[in-house]
Amino acid sequence: MYVKLDFLKNFPQFIYRTRSTYKYTKKMSYEPLIHSDDPKHPANVICALCKQFYDNNWCTGTGGGISIKHQTTGAYYIAPSGVQKEQMKPEDMFVMDGKSKEYLRIPKQFKPSACTPLFVACFQHRNAGAIIHTHSQNAVLSSLLFDKVFKIANIEQIKAIPSGKVDPETGKLIPLSFFDTLNIPIIENKAHEDQLIDSLLQTFEDYPHTCAVIVRRHGIFVWGPTIEKAKVFNEAIDYLMELAVKMCQLGIPPDCGIDEEAKFIAKR
Amino acid sequence: MYVKLDFLKNFPQFIYRTRSTYKYTKKMSYEPLIHSDDPKHPANVICALCKQFYDNNWCTGTGGGISIKHQTTGAYYIAPSGVQKEQMKPEDMFVMDGKSKEYLRIPKQFKPSACTPLFVACFQHRNAGAIIHTHSQNAVLSSLLFDKVFKIANIEQIKAIPSGKVDPETGKLIPLSFFDTLNIPIIENKAHEDQLIDSLLQTFEDYPHTCAVIVRRHGIFVWGPTIEKAKVFNEAIDYLMELAVKMCQLGIPPDCGIDEEAKFIAKR
Amino acid sequence: MYVKLDFLKNFPQFIYRTRSTYKYTKKMSYEPLIHSDDPKHPANVICALCKQFYDNNWCTGTGGGISIKHQTTGAYYIAPSGVQKEQMKPEDMFVMDGKSKEYLRIPKQFKPSACTPLFVACFQHRNAGAIIHTHSQNAVLSSLLFDKVFKIANIEQIKAIPSGKVDPETGKLIPLSFFDTLNIPIIENKAHEDQLIDSLLQTFEDYPHTCAVIVRRHGIFVWGPTIEKAKVFNEAIDYLMELAVKMCQLGIPPDCGIDEEAKFIAKR
Amino acid sequence: MYVKLDFLKNFPQFIYRTRSTYKYTKKMSYEPLIHSDDPKHPANVICALCKQFYDNNWCTGTGGGISIKHQTTGAYYIAPSGVQKEQMKPEDMFVMDGKSKEYLRIPKQFKPSACTPLFVACFQHRNAGAIIHTHSQNAVLSSLLFDKVFKIANIEQIKAIPSGKVDPETGKLIPLSFFDTLNIPIIENKAHEDQLIDSLLQTFEDYPHTCAVIVRRHGIFVWGPTIEKAKVFNEAIDYLMELAVKMCQLGIPPDCGIDEEAKFIAKR
Repeated sequence: MYVKLDFLKNFPQFIYRTRSTYKYTKKMSYEPLIHSDDPKHPANVICALCKQFYDNNWCTGTGGGISIKHQTTGAYYIAPSGVQKEQMKPEDMFVMDGKSKEYLRIPKQFKPSACTPLFVACFQHRNAGAIIHTHSQNAVLSSLLFDKVFKIANIEQIKAIPSGKVDPETGKLIPLSFFDTLNIPIIENKAHEDQLIDSLLQTFEDYPHTCAVIVRRHGIFVWGPTIEKAKVFNEAIDYLMELAVKMCQLGIPPDCGIDEEAKFIAKR
Repeated sequence: MYVKLDFLKNFPQFIYRTRSTYKYTKKMSYEPLIHSDDPKHPANVICALCKQFYDNNWCTGTGGGISIKHQTTGAYYIAPSGVQKEQMKPEDMFVMDGKSKEYLRIPKQFKPSACTPLFVACFQHRNAGAIIHTHSQNAVLSSLLFDKVFKIANIEQIKAIPSGKVDPETGKLIPLSFFDTLNIPIIENKAHEDQLIDSLLQTFEDYPHTCAVIVRRHGIFVWGPTIEKAKVFNEAIDYLMELAVKMCQLGIPPDCGIDEEAKFIAKR
Repeated sequence: MYVKLDFLKNFPQFIYRTRSTYKYTKKMSYEPLIHSDDPKHPANVICALCKQFYDNNWCTGTGGGISIKHQTTGAYYIAPSGVQKEQMKPEDMFVMDGKSKEYLRIPKQFKPSACTPLFVACFQHRNAGAIIHTHSQNAVLSSLLFDKVFKIANIEQIKAIPSGKVDPETGKLIPLSFFDTLNIPIIENKAHEDQLIDSLLQTFEDYPHTCAVIVRRHGIFVWGPTIEKAKVFNEAIDYLMELAVKMCQLGIPPDCGIDEEAKFIAKR
Repeated sequence: MYVKLDFLKNFPQFIYRTRSTYKYTKKMSYEPLIHSDDPKHPANVICALCKQFYDNNWCTGTGGGISIKHQTTGAYYIAPSGVQKEQMKPEDMFVMDGKSKEYLRIPKQFKPSACTPLFVACFQHRNAGAIIHTHSQNAVLSSLLFDKVFKIANIEQIKAIPSGKVDPETGKLIPLSFFDTLNIPIIENKAHEDQLIDSLLQTFEDYPHTCAVIVRRHGIFVWGPTIEKAKVFNEAIDYLMELAVKMCQLGIPPDCGIDEEAKFIAKR
């Protein structure tokens, strides 16, 4: 114990972030629902990724969120509303029964995320294992530059995104090819996040294969069968949105054909 | 002890930053006013956040600062002038009595921050619990692009900022809505920071609900009832100023109405 | 052991990333091919650099890769396909015999990188000791702005890149001079990375002195006699591609002569 | 000892960077000239700051460098040429006698930095205590946008830079005022860094009060009476060069008068 406290004193920059732990070791009791030594437990993964996403400028202020379905119990773990995402701890987590949709755990002092119905819709209607929601500026800018659908074509990175087609032999998702166009639908923002549910459900019908929806002037929702997949999809899409904004600034349409950029700029 | 020194040798990059601690364990005596095991103590929080803000490029050189009111004693903790913000330690802190405005503690070798009267004005006239001052380039650029007031509208992130209205039932601050416009007044810079006091007080009258003031060609002051709130407000406003600059570069007015961006750019 | 676990609990953000180690200490057996205390062992260096490159946005999603030839055994160590690069561990590594090109080690659950034939070609035909492949946005944007060859001239940083000429006295590679132009060939992307092999081999003939090839709308391959050199070349080239994009945005041709920029912009 | 190695295994990303320490504890002998427990010893500070500057993109590849005069012995500590700056260790350091200019220590396997004569000139003719040299892209771009002198005016951050005037009462350097213009001379680059010496000495005559010189298409040299001051000057100048490039992109001359920006852009 002495070693730990002594160690922390050496790194004043860490003290603030570890306040939760401090409390935990002093006062809190163990809760099997949220406390686990397994780093892949949803409560641990949500805390770790929220910290990482905060550093990426995807969860500025208290924006954004993550929800993960427990692979054994099927319970939904959901980051709360209004919490500073880089300081989140397992004790802050809401847990919802995957079948009854009743809360198994409600943390004191927090409100449920207004995104909760959207997360649940992705779990239920898209068979998602995890959903990531960010306020990425690349998503906001893309939603200003594109009308109904974000489009980018012929970039290697789109191969990280599933096409929606399934290989009949292996049963695995077939990714987009380099020669494909990635389409991500854009829906209009509403006053409250839970009001997005109708547009989201409509999008599921109109774009049954998409793994993401951009919300205009707001951010993006990305889902996948596991949190590992959802994370990879989100990173690849953010990379592509960032690239699309830069291409627009240079005068190159992000969905133009291979070598068609020469129509728009004087190539060197 | 052996463990600690041995450990530090493994991480040469940490040595420079922890010099304060080294001195502390050797020579300094314990001061209850500034030394605390509680990571939420103002002296600890100021050090931790200054480090974080330096990494965000908000406290380049020795710019910027933070002041926090102790929630129990009401004393004001103030980062000193001229110190490298990423290396600040509790021993560098000025402490002022919240009532008499007399210094309870003056660190040797430092001058008080020229921002001190501005911080005190926010504590007294805005009932602030904490004030953050940064030299954010997004604030400087926004002050060049806007005349008297920075304006941005219809972006989800503005919901992180209070509207100034209070919910009559709960007594809580009501945040801005997605359909609102965020207005932040811009005041002219002066030769010395303490000369900003008159403009600041005038702004309190003209914009009684604002939680921030941009200083042209200088930076921004952001306050809130607690340091947690002030931090969230500052992050959200910086995000919005960054977005506004990018929108200006793309030709889109940051305060244009929803879907009005199509008037200014050819949407895809 | 208690110390370690206790320590990890203090830093929830680290838990996720160290999952591999957790497994290792519990279940895995020691493999001399990939486990070494020497931090310069290829398996360790690949993991460390993939983490660093991920933080640089060069390996977003699961993109990019690194391959290193073991200096004693001549075996090729290759990062697998589809793995999150910031979480890679020695156990994920493919190892190929440098002579027979047969796999000495195939990790369960991973596929070999589609870049493998390209890496092998660089080892064999360029006498490379290491190859770095990134999806750097600076490379993708450069490939859109330039036609057949990326060119930048008269920038100090190009002195980090070898000219291809060898000093007859010392036998060492002579770097480019400040007054030289750096040329990096650009090849067209294909549906699958292994289909790039013909273009790559052709480039070896056409540009025998290049240490890098840009793949249009995809990324870049950079190689060197050692991983230290390849890393330095890759960093310097990425710096130069980033600078070239910024110069294009300002209207200055990246390969214009010294003081010729005044032809293109109004200098202050 | 067990603890340390066990700990390192948990963090594969750290292994590469700490290779020097590993060697040190096993094989190297203690050298009083470069080994010190004092984190402010020049050899320790140079290593710590090179790591920090690398992370800032100021020392990409093996570019840039730092030299510090030992405050007691007057010896010059100089980072070597060609080393990866983020991995530097005290054992890599050149040490030169401040009077005789003879090397007190020459590390095996490294060449002296080509900047050495420039560093020595700053120590001797500017009474510098430390010199920082970076390949900052903000410096390179500024050198393309400005002709003979980089100029920026009426920005709060310029108050971090000394005016060259001395307060007759306190003997302290008087900083620039908010209403001043910061001028930094730009010299032409040469094939070899040591050939910059004549231009540098001429600049000392023409701009006796400058604390920095930009080298066109190359980078910047910044000096100060101590390494703390030089670091603050370098950060403030880099901030101002970054801001100037952004102002140019928006069409605003960086040295325009207060409120004159309205002549160049339509303010909102």
